[in-house]
Amino acid sequence: MLKKLYHGTAFYPELWSAEVVSNDISWMEEIGINVVRIGEFLWSTVEPQEGHIELGLLVQVIGQLHEAGIETIMCTPTATPPVWYSHGHPERLFVNTEGTRLGHGSRQHACTNHPYFREKASIITDRLAQELGQLPGLIAWQLDNEFKAHVSACMCDVCRDLWHEWLEQRYGQVEHLNECWGTRVWSQSYQDFRQVPQPGPTPFLHNSSLQTMYQLFSMEKIAEFAEEQAAIIRRSSPVPVTHNSSMAFHVDNERLFRSLDFASYDTYASAAHYSAYMLNCDLFRNFKPDHPFWIMETSPSHAGSIAGSGTPHPNGYLAAEAVAAYASGAEGFCYWLWRQQRSGCEQPHGSIVSAWGKPGIGYENVLEAEAARKSIESAILNSRPVRAEAAITYSDRAKAFLTTESHGKLRHRGLVSLVYDVMLQTGMHRDLIPEGASMAGYKLLWTPFVPHLSSDYMNQALAFVDNGGIWIVGPMTAVRTEEHTVPTNAGLGDLEKFTGAETIFTYDMDGTGTLGEAFGVTAPLSLWSTVFKPVEAVSMGTLLGGPSPGMSFLTEYRRGLGKLVLLGSMPAEEEGSEMLEQILIHYGQEANVKRLLPFTQGTIVIPRKSHHEDLWVIINMNGQGGSVTLPMNGTDKLTGVSISAGNLVVKPYEYRLIALPAGV
Amino acid sequence: MLKKLYHGTAFYPELWSAEVVSNDISWMEEIGINVVRIGEFLWSTVEPQEGHIELGLLVQVIGQLHEAGIETIMCTPTATPPVWYSHGHPERLFVNTEGTRLGHGSRQHACTNHPYFREKASIITDRLAQELGQLPGLIAWQLDNEFKAHVSACMCDVCRDLWHEWLEQRYGQVEHLNECWGTRVWSQSYQDFRQVPQPGPTPFLHNSSLQTMYQLFSMEKIAEFAEEQAAIIRRSSPVPVTHNSSMAFHVDNERLFRSLDFASYDTYASAAHYSAYMLNCDLFRNFKPDHPFWIMETSPSHAGSIAGSGTPHPNGYLAAEAVAAYASGAEGFCYWLWRQQRSGCEQPHGSIVSAWGKPGIGYENVLEAEAARKSIESAILNSRPVRAEAAITYSDRAKAFLTTESHGKLRHRGLVSLVYDVMLQTGMHRDLIPEGASMAGYKLLWTPFVPHLSSDYMNQALAFVDNGGIWIVGPMTAVRTEEHTVPTNAGLGDLEKFTGAETIFTYDMDGTGTLGEAFGVTAPLSLWSTVFKPVEAVSMGTLLGGPSPGMSFLTEYRRGLGKLVLLGSMPAEEEGSEMLEQILIHYGQEANVKRLLPFTQGTIVIPRKSHHEDLWVIINMNGQGGSVTLPMNGTDKLTGVSISAGNLVVKPYEYRLIALPAGV
Amino acid sequence: MLKKLYHGTAFYPELWSAEVVSNDISWMEEIGINVVRIGEFLWSTVEPQEGHIELGLLVQVIGQLHEAGIETIMCTPTATPPVWYSHGHPERLFVNTEGTRLGHGSRQHACTNHPYFREKASIITDRLAQELGQLPGLIAWQLDNEFKAHVSACMCDVCRDLWHEWLEQRYGQVEHLNECWGTRVWSQSYQDFRQVPQPGPTPFLHNSSLQTMYQLFSMEKIAEFAEEQAAIIRRSSPVPVTHNSSMAFHVDNERLFRSLDFASYDTYASAAHYSAYMLNCDLFRNFKPDHPFWIMETSPSHAGSIAGSGTPHPNGYLAAEAVAAYASGAEGFCYWLWRQQRSGCEQPHGSIVSAWGKPGIGYENVLEAEAARKSIESAILNSRPVRAEAAITYSDRAKAFLTTESHGKLRHRGLVSLVYDVMLQTGMHRDLIPEGASMAGYKLLWTPFVPHLSSDYMNQALAFVDNGGIWIVGPMTAVRTEEHTVPTNAGLGDLEKFTGAETIFTYDMDGTGTLGEAFGVTAPLSLWSTVFKPVEAVSMGTLLGGPSPGMSFLTEYRRGLGKLVLLGSMPAEEEGSEMLEQILIHYGQEANVKRLLPFTQGTIVIPRKSHHEDLWVIINMNGQGGSVTLPMNGTDKLTGVSISAGNLVVKPYEYRLIALPAGV
Repeated sequence: MLKKLYHGTAFYPELWSAEVVSNDISWMEEIGINVVRIGEFLWSTVEPQEGHIELGLLVQVIGQLHEAGIETIMCTPTATPPVWYSHGHPERLFVNTEGTRLGHGSRQHACTNHPYFREKASIITDRLAQELGQLPGLIAWQLDNEFKAHVSACMCDVCRDLWHEWLEQRYGQVEHLNECWGTRVWSQSYQDFRQVPQPGPTPFLHNSSLQTMYQLFSMEKIAEFAEEQAAIIRRSSPVPVTHNSSMAFHVDNERLFRSLDFASYDTYASAAHYSAYMLNCDLFRNFKPDHPFWIMETSPSHAGSIAGSGTPHPNGYLAAEAVAAYASGAEGFCYWLWRQQRSGCEQPHGSIVSAWGKPGIGYENVLEAEAARKSIESAILNSRPVRAEAAITYSDRAKAFLTTESHGKLRHRGLVSLVYDVMLQTGMHRDLIPEGASMAGYKLLWTPFVPHLSSDYMNQALAFVDNGGIWIVGPMTAVRTEEHTVPTNAGLGDLEKFTGAETIFTYDMDGTGTLGEAFGVTAPLSLWSTVFKPVEAVSMGTLLGGPSPGMSFLTEYRRGLGKLVLLGSMPAEEEGSEMLEQILIHYGQEANVKRLLPFTQGTIVIPRKSHHEDLWVIINMNGQGGSVTLPMNGTDKLTGVSISAGNLVVKPYEYRLIALPAGV
Repeated sequence: MLKKLYHGTAFYPELWSAEVVSNDISWMEEIGINVVRIGEFLWSTVEPQEGHIELGLLVQVIGQLHEAGIETIMCTPTATPPVWYSHGHPERLFVNTEGTRLGHGSRQHACTNHPYFREKASIITDRLAQELGQLPGLIAWQLDNEFKAHVSACMCDVCRDLWHEWLEQRYGQVEHLNECWGTRVWSQSYQDFRQVPQPGPTPFLHNSSLQTMYQLFSMEKIAEFAEEQAAIIRRSSPVPVTHNSSMAFHVDNERLFRSLDFASYDTYASAAHYSAYMLNCDLFRNFKPDHPFWIMETSPSHAGSIAGSGTPHPNGYLAAEAVAAYASGAEGFCYWLWRQQRSGCEQPHGSIVSAWGKPGIGYENVLEAEAARKSIESAILNSRPVRAEAAITYSDRAKAFLTTESHGKLRHRGLVSLVYDVMLQTGMHRDLIPEGASMAGYKLLWTPFVPHLSSDYMNQALAFVDNGGIWIVGPMTAVRTEEHTVPTNAGLGDLEKFTGAETIFTYDMDGTGTLGEAFGVTAPLSLWSTVFKPVEAVSMGTLLGGPSPGMSFLTEYRRGLGKLVLLGSMPAEEEGSEMLEQILIHYGQEANVKRLLPFTQGTIVIPRKSHHEDLWVIINMNGQGGSVTLPMNGTDKLTGVSISAGNLVVKPYEYRLIALPAGV
Repeated sequence: MLKKLYHGTAFYPELWSAEVVSNDISWMEEIGINVVRIGEFLWSTVEPQEGHIELGLLVQVIGQLHEAGIETIMCTPTATPPVWYSHGHPERLFVNTEGTRLGHGSRQHACTNHPYFREKASIITDRLAQELGQLPGLIAWQLDNEFKAHVSACMCDVCRDLWHEWLEQRYGQVEHLNECWGTRVWSQSYQDFRQVPQPGPTPFLHNSSLQTMYQLFSMEKIAEFAEEQAAIIRRSSPVPVTHNSSMAFHVDNERLFRSLDFASYDTYASAAHYSAYMLNCDLFRNFKPDHPFWIMETSPSHAGSIAGSGTPHPNGYLAAEAVAAYASGAEGFCYWLWRQQRSGCEQPHGSIVSAWGKPGIGYENVLEAEAARKSIESAILNSRPVRAEAAITYSDRAKAFLTTESHGKLRHRGLVSLVYDVMLQTGMHRDLIPEGASMAGYKLLWTPFVPHLSSDYMNQALAFVDNGGIWIVGPMTAVRTEEHTVPTNAGLGDLEKFTGAETIFTYDMDGTGTLGEAFGVTAPLSLWSTVFKPVEAVSMGTLLGGPSPGMSFLTEYRRGLGKLVLLGSMPAEEEGSEMLEQILIHYGQEANVKRLLPFTQGTIVIPRKSHHEDLWVIINMNGQGGSVTLPMNGTDKLTGVSISAGNLVVKPYEYRLIALPAGV
């Protein structure tokens, strides 16, 4: 269990005078900041000339912070190699898809696969770990910063050679690669791994397998770099290692966090998209289920740079965010950044304190968040998040497939958000879980937008069904092989024989006028779709209009104690969301998934439990106030006042912690 | 005359097992497919290592097909040189306008002008011709695939040198080039042909002559390649040679087909744009007027790739398309493709059969199309297309001029479609004819959007007028010289003295508020326009508003037995289409052009004739049903039933073949 | 004072035969053209081979013109180095931000900083000056043509080295640069000036200081080139030197014209944007306040090229433009161009005469403009423009800051146009003045969108306030340091201590729902904004809604005899324009600024004065007619008729010159 709730901020002592730094530390202490993250961009400060490393500043600052009761997360600075690394060495730089070499002057300009980069990164990280790794106050390490946020896969010559090695390891013989990728199409067959190109400019599209594999290769390589760096740190420092990741970056988060000790991420969702904020909490909690997660960066008010600036949060929203994070299982809630950048390119970004040392636009909200943290800390520390009964599978490898095969319109993140929002609306508590996560304990599992299902996943999910679970498959799931080709045994490949249905047609339903009818709702159907003929399965949704009227887009099939449900198409527009909601409600009911009902949209319940009671954390996230419904009488944990069962009204951005008898 | 109607499909025996191939051939036979096209991308299969060519697979498959009663069109595979051609040889690759070299991994990546490409292409084609050229069942050759579909003019060094040679041949002395191109503007004068750049990146626009000539050069070179390849085939094979071209590619179709034996093309127009489908039929019929044309590729349902997917045709449309093609003079109507691609990048493309061997979304429609083919075959074989009385000139060289001088908005294909649609609406049967086509037999000739009129064309058209024809010139016709400069003798150059009018102003009428009034219609005028003062001609259309009110945009001038009509501007919006229609109707009437009237929009009549009767092929193309009007009593050729003169109703996508007394 | 009003045109004798040239000169003489500009693109004509310069053609043409009573402005041809300069010498060519080298075939393709370019440019200009510099009829020189119109800063290696020199001169020590730019952010610190990159492609944004400094460097270098060229000319020729510049180009006009003798510019604003036309007159008049300015290029009808073509001016507008220019202080009003280009890429551009020698679409309008010139010449020559009482500061260096820090939406020119239009609507006569201009004589000074205020400017403006002026600062003014960083002493840096207010917050108000209320108007506030707490100042505008309600966005502070007004945000939409107008009217009234009222929108008054009377030049610019109000009885200077005080109606595009008693 947690020992404390951290409330923190990114801090750049290397950018300000010793006096400003001292004052800032006092100021932080005063307002309750109890952790800072430092160092992720300071390589040139500590190694101004190649080989001359001097870490005194860090030792001192960590000490000062510790004296002020502020703990430190120390970062490795590998996202920003100094100019001595890049100047005169174009071969060390990142090359983008168009073949342009990206130069010094920003960040992530180095190819992270270059052996000399790996060498210099090892040295600096090793020194940091050795000299700082045991300092009092140091509680964790963050590797690098936002891997692959600005760049995707590198196309340099070093990467080309590693790509060829990776292919050789994956396929053994080039003939096998040719077969797996179907390279005879367009005479692309390779005679040697060294001939396989990187997916650079061509007259028309690259082979889908090549495009997807290059992404997987790149995601594997960045995870290997993280693994290598974490191992170096662990030699000298006992505290855990993380990375500040995101759904938006070109990484495989599941693979990445496998090598790390806990999960953390950055999020800059605007208040209008509070459900995106919740989605991140419900996802990142599950990458390292045995460790609490951290929100490593969020803005006290708004994101911004010289190229664009966001809208400051409405007053009150920040505390709601903080409470939602802690209630969802976060140990830390941290800002970017303490003091506004005076230089660089992010001067317009929201900060707690302005560059001239005055409270910034979000300052009062940070104080509110701190008050909230204090008020809930004891209740949170004495309880733990409740495992949800309903889960949605999330996969960055699926994202790679959809990037390759975008049909000109598919955006993985947007699709995941759509399905998440529907589940949020049903009032079910939910987990987003990675592909490799255990399915044990869930009652309802939804696997949307995962073009390839691994056999491990499929077997685990079939066992889940055998044991009474309901598994909803689709849309766009199981329609491609591991190699990003079309299955030739059946439309859904190896899965199809377990579905009681037969895939007849696949086509994009947009613009065809096809409607679907299911559970009393009629909605337009959308996106690349699979049309079924039920064999032993039962059709639960029928196509109207379009080129295949009367056929099925939704089937269910009993298996063991559970059911396998195929959803072949994406219901669209408002009616489509309504249909998806009805599908979830129907199967949720069958699977006996609890719904925390009724509630008004924009107000959420995050259920927790302690050894003797349940704890509902209720938060209004949309700033309009609302209500939820308590199933029994309870107690307000913050005031001790008794609360009657039934409707509980919350004011705009208000949060309530209500204790209820255990196991309601 | 035709011996049979072909119904075919692209087929890739190199991609599937022998068993699948055998089964597929049987299946094709069963459903009436009587021709397949093979081989256009299989270079790496038959020459896996440079110099090791093995064609046994093809011999066998052509034999199998022949046994099944299916004939073969054999392709040369030159659109996809294998990796042994490109790997390690960047100098052999295509370079685009931005100067980017395009790599292996797609198709059309080779510069088709590179001498080593020409050599390797000659060798493989020669071998194919020698070993397959006399096989039973082989009925034709297709060169390459969709020349210049993905790329336009190459900018590599080989092309640079050929460009200089081409310029020297065209201009003799560089001083002559300087004079023709007016290079003194902006000090661009050249001292040597070798200094003339390719039209790559510059701070502002290139000289118009240079831009247009580079396109003509590129179009000539690809036609030369076709010529060279066709000659190789003809040494060993007696069957005719074609290429699957399109209006959309960067080729001069008239020049290209001069070297080939018959015309064919690919079309993927959606059902909503059925007039684009008809336009292609009415155009490609005329590139080789003595030979029937082929639709070499069209989708059984929808086009698609991993980057985007079209809408499947409504059920019933495919048979309507097939009947329209055969009625328009097509000998073959072929699909892309038989079996869905399992790999590559076109997996989402519509196919007759899915990758897992089930009927695809268009399968039933293919069966319908086959039933239609069978039902009309005898009537079609015993008749021939009627030469239209009205013609529109089509020119890919004009397209090059408009590409250079786009005014930021001109798209040749869209403009041609606009004028075609207007003529379609008048109920006149029509031909789109290339610049060099004979004008004999036509009564009404329209030459829109041909910025430069060659003197050959002009002389032929003036003779056409002398003999009683009515020639409508414009919009945007004869406004530029052969060298893409502005004429200095008169606004319409050499033509002007034959027009009875004087060009006063030229300007873009968009946004000026200029209206035109003609034949009782008032419409906004649009695009780059020519304002006339009638001298001996009569103004038939007057400008209202704008900067030159009261002047003429439409004049007519008697000449010999006919008339020369100048149309100086493009009437816009709905009223503009109405005005163009009225202009065509008026001059069509004067020229005594038959109109097949009345009819409802979306239902078309394709007139044919045999030695003893006329045959109207009536098709509803818009899926809404409609009617046409029979001028006399006739007979339904499919049922033998008598049909009364007057209104004939057709159901959605229905086709009728009505025999009428000859020469109505 | 002026001796005559020039009415002229660009003329290209090198492009046409001697006969055409002679006829054209006679034609010009006949219609009143009294000046031509020649030679700006003829380098290849006079130096066809490197080193062989022959200027006979120019001597002859200038003589012919002189004989016809037409004076000449001679240009240097350096915008278009001949092919002998560029062919085979890629290192001499311009390199754009993406790293692409731009080739021969257009103009501005040479890097103007290359020493060999400077050498060849010096030689040709020296020869021109020596051989033509004393010819009768020559009245001025124009350097080059539209510096940096098509290109911005060059990224070639020569520029890289000059950049490093420039940095060394500016910063002395690289440590100083690091400090000024805050390069420790993202480890960008430099050890040597030679390591500082040019702002080419990077994964994310460059440092703001680097981006802005590279622009200032580039603007300084082009001004140096102008300075160098002007010095060469002055050695041999006594007539003044100018350049045809624009607000739209990548130059610092204030710096550029410092080295030149008079200001001139090109403008192609459409009639619909007549206020953009007036803005240019009110700006360029002030770059060289002791010399009349020239409109060196404007179209007789419309701008155009093969890539797009504008709308011809409505008939009547051209004369209104000419009168507005002369009334605003122009000595010359010149067209581009006399005879339509037959070749190159600007064939569609409006011209006085067509390529085939007929009057063009604007010809009659040119005759009208000439008639207007003649009718007003005496009144204009006997009066002079009145210095305005209200001024807006214009800065191309500010434009560089906003280009770097665009927030994704800021366009300097559009913002300047917005504030100009507001002042135009108030009926105040106005000057746009460069940063270094004297503020003496003004009563109201507005400094919007100048992110960095130099201390010189600030001190001058504070003195202006001390002496009774009212100075409005903002929006977005004084928010950045000279080095494009955020001030750390106060939100407005050194200025803040003089404002009586404290900057509390800065954020982008778009999308926050923030409204402002001031002077009875409530309007949405917009763009990057500064929120104030008045200390000794008085709040004149209050924020409603958004994240900082109740605070101030508009303060005023008495200082000496005047006031300093801070405007922290940009009022948006129609209400925002209304609010800005009310702010100007309020402070204009306090400052006692005359307003020429009332008038109808689209009709303008340009006040002039002679030694004994005032002269109002009244022009309807919107083609709808309108009226102004004469404060006293006056006299029509063109007819001598007396005009009563009060409402004076003008017809569409009509101009009137009304003499009023002096000093009204």
